[in-house]
Amino acid sequence: MAFNNRVKIKSLLEQPLIGAEVTIMGWVRTKRSNKNVSFIALNDGSIITNYQVVADPNVISEEILKKCSTGACLKVNGTIVESQGAGQAAELHASSIEVLGEADPEKYPLQPKKHSLEFLREIAHLRIRTNTFSAVFRVRHALAYAVHKYFNDKGFFYIHTPIITASDAEGAGETFKVTTLEIGNPPRTEDGAVDFKQDFFEREANLTVSGQLEGELAALALSEIYTFGPTFRAENSNTTRHLAEFWMIEPEMAFYDAEDNADLAEDFLKYLIRYALENCEDDLKFLEARLLDEEKSKPADQRSEMGLIEKLKFVADNDFVRITYTEAIDILRNSKPNKKKKFQYLIESWGADLQSEHERYLVEKHFKKPVILTDYPKEIKAFYMRQNEDGKTVAAMDILFPGIGEIIGGSQREERMDKLVQRMEEMDIPTEEMWWFLDTRRFGSTPHAGFGLGFERMVQFVTGMGNIRDVIAFPRTPGNAEF
Amino acid sequence: MAFNNRVKIKSLLEQPLIGAEVTIMGWVRTKRSNKNVSFIALNDGSIITNYQVVADPNVISEEILKKCSTGACLKVNGTIVESQGAGQAAELHASSIEVLGEADPEKYPLQPKKHSLEFLREIAHLRIRTNTFSAVFRVRHALAYAVHKYFNDKGFFYIHTPIITASDAEGAGETFKVTTLEIGNPPRTEDGAVDFKQDFFEREANLTVSGQLEGELAALALSEIYTFGPTFRAENSNTTRHLAEFWMIEPEMAFYDAEDNADLAEDFLKYLIRYALENCEDDLKFLEARLLDEEKSKPADQRSEMGLIEKLKFVADNDFVRITYTEAIDILRNSKPNKKKKFQYLIESWGADLQSEHERYLVEKHFKKPVILTDYPKEIKAFYMRQNEDGKTVAAMDILFPGIGEIIGGSQREERMDKLVQRMEEMDIPTEEMWWFLDTRRFGSTPHAGFGLGFERMVQFVTGMGNIRDVIAFPRTPGNAEF
Repeated sequence: MAFNNRVKIKSLLEQPLIGAEVTIMGWVRTKRSNKNVSFIALNDGSIITNYQVVADPNVISEEILKKCSTGACLKVNGTIVESQGAGQAAELHASSIEVLGEADPEKYPLQPKKHSLEFLREIAHLRIRTNTFSAVFRVRHALAYAVHKYFNDKGFFYIHTPIITASDAEGAGETFKVTTLEIGNPPRTEDGAVDFKQDFFEREANLTVSGQLEGELAALALSEIYTFGPTFRAENSNTTRHLAEFWMIEPEMAFYDAEDNADLAEDFLKYLIRYALENCEDDLKFLEARLLDEEKSKPADQRSEMGLIEKLKFVADNDFVRITYTEAIDILRNSKPNKKKKFQYLIESWGADLQSEHERYLVEKHFKKPVILTDYPKEIKAFYMRQNEDGKTVAAMDILFPGIGEIIGGSQREERMDKLVQRMEEMDIPTEEMWWFLDTRRFGSTPHAGFGLGFERMVQFVTGMGNIRDVIAFPRTPGNAEF
Repeated sequence: MAFNNRVKIKSLLEQPLIGAEVTIMGWVRTKRSNKNVSFIALNDGSIITNYQVVADPNVISEEILKKCSTGACLKVNGTIVESQGAGQAAELHASSIEVLGEADPEKYPLQPKKHSLEFLREIAHLRIRTNTFSAVFRVRHALAYAVHKYFNDKGFFYIHTPIITASDAEGAGETFKVTTLEIGNPPRTEDGAVDFKQDFFEREANLTVSGQLEGELAALALSEIYTFGPTFRAENSNTTRHLAEFWMIEPEMAFYDAEDNADLAEDFLKYLIRYALENCEDDLKFLEARLLDEEKSKPADQRSEMGLIEKLKFVADNDFVRITYTEAIDILRNSKPNKKKKFQYLIESWGADLQSEHERYLVEKHFKKPVILTDYPKEIKAFYMRQNEDGKTVAAMDILFPGIGEIIGGSQREERMDKLVQRMEEMDIPTEEMWWFLDTRRFGSTPHAGFGLGFERMVQFVTGMGNIRDVIAFPRTPGNAEF
């Protein structure tokens, strides 16, 4: 006696099945009633569109109809009929309604009115039931699937790199410690230090900030691999762009140089956007309207110049600008905001680290396109990036997106043992601890490259959501590990 | 000047391109030389098969050829020619060879001889370059992709549930603590306790043991979801079946009862196996031969009755056995090993927890098929499982596989608020902390179900690898967080 004999609403909207007797199940979004009839808008999460259930009070009892309030879960049997009303082609004339779960209108927080995103963040366990968040999470799913499909179709292999790691060589930021010791009362060595030999891994361990180094090990065996997993930063950043726990995609490819790397990254980003345009049309239309509505309250000059879908098409259809860091510094030094001292950090000379304001200027004002910035000064980049012939720069690449800033960071990796060791020593990276990483240069080394895409930033870009906490189901930020 | 102009070996084997001039890149597996010619077997990780490079000493210098030792990375230009020798249809006659990276034969650990799996575990960063491990990780990739494809095609949405969590209500085992406090010297409250208000999340936090509870929140909005992410157990288990960090797939479905749940799980497992059979034929053939070879050293009665591929086909093509716990107890009580007291834990009465030896007896001796065991005593199962009418059992389901044991655990969930709260109170689960979980029963509750598949156990089953540490790239176990 299986229970699940329903037809999904998505499938009913694609194949109307006029005249058929079907069962649908879902949650009530709204109910409108008059003496002769009730219209119930039912949503099952499979698609943003609600399905209209028509209930005749001569068929469905008043007691049942009363319970069909917003948020209640229903099982409805009935016949599909062509709709007389506007707004839908067909509707379900109910022969029976079973209330699977009620939702007391006095207590249910999601009433059919506009709720602020801040309020919805407090009830992240329920916000998935709203139009906005169900759309965001369907798009997020589609993008995640597109990531796997893109790489699988290209012959890349998905590698699960470790989440718990004893190496923190990348120095990408503050890490979370992982332990089974009693915090505050750990075992001690004779000299009073914490005795990590008695910890689970018999040493200090933390949560990974990147799977790149392990990804390189796999790429130097399987040629082309990618990771897609959670990464962590214990930074006290309360911004709309930072999470303590976020998902990252890190392809790593043997036999790729910096140009191959940029080509792949640009192709990949465009593929993801096109996939969403093709597979999430209805959700994107809804999100575009939402964004337009949200921006109405902003001053005209802060509103987006393009609608969401137009912007996505623009990025998918146009070449990204590719310039070097050195060229970018020239542009910025001669820019209006620099000359008029409008930048918080003025660009005075080559070597300056680029801030968010500079990246946004390049992308949003100067080029009005995504920008691939390459060949940064080695001093502001990580030890593993390949040193260029000029002795000053490395084969790094950042991809900057309008409204988002850095969405991808990558580089060709230093494959030359001597150069790599020299740079590690200059930067105080312990070469002994990293014996396994150096082994890949010691044995069968080869030019290789890779990059990291912050998945949530990509979801933000595609959905138009302004706050990164609104594109992951249960965000982790300072002071926040609820649910 | 992009570097990556190679043809992948996999593609060359599918489309031989006789007469074409191509570039291939990869790592030397073996080299055989005589005065007139050298044969180099090159592997690029795209496929298990090596490609034969033929080097004429009149064309390629002795100095270069000397460097083409096992493990070295080469870029070879040449012409594809039909092969005269046995073993391959075509081969590459080299016009030039560039040694991208040498591998000193005196130091490179992976020489062309048989290495033990134990030894290779010590050099996990290099073992991916062996036939066995490259095959395992290609199959692992294929299975991961199949997971996403299966659910995407069915309209399920992929949800990333949190890795760091403050809730430990599932009680699925020991957890790892996550903190930014100084472990030996944390801030204290006035009464001397550790002041977790000053920790990153302002409370105690740990690594997730399961995404199920959060998955339920999403299923009760989007109908059908799945997770696929890392989960953690801080158990001091040094076995061939346990990891401290492993990946789990957890689908969760609104409108499914226990039978729908079992139907989905069986269909899903068979899909994964069929996908591997269709997409990994050459790797599976290699792994089958490897297993056969490994089992030669075992006594005849401990060898597998079927070859690897035959076993996979058998599981994919036959119905799983479905029996209740109560029926299983009857079978076990009357079994030979129970009567002859061969079981370590004798089955005496209803209510006993099943041990690995009992599961293996049912699957491997009695039924010789995968078994779906249902309706366990509520005392030995988790609080969230749906209580059956008998008042004694819950709608739990475990799926047992030959050689693996439990590969899936799942249940219909208790959707009735009163029954759920009552069970939580009986089991001392804090209902106040779990307000968000209970909200799903308070508002728009519905029958729903789900299960968890341990991904590494599935990879073990499909690849025939005996030790779970050999199916994940960088295993985390007690005392081991290397790489």
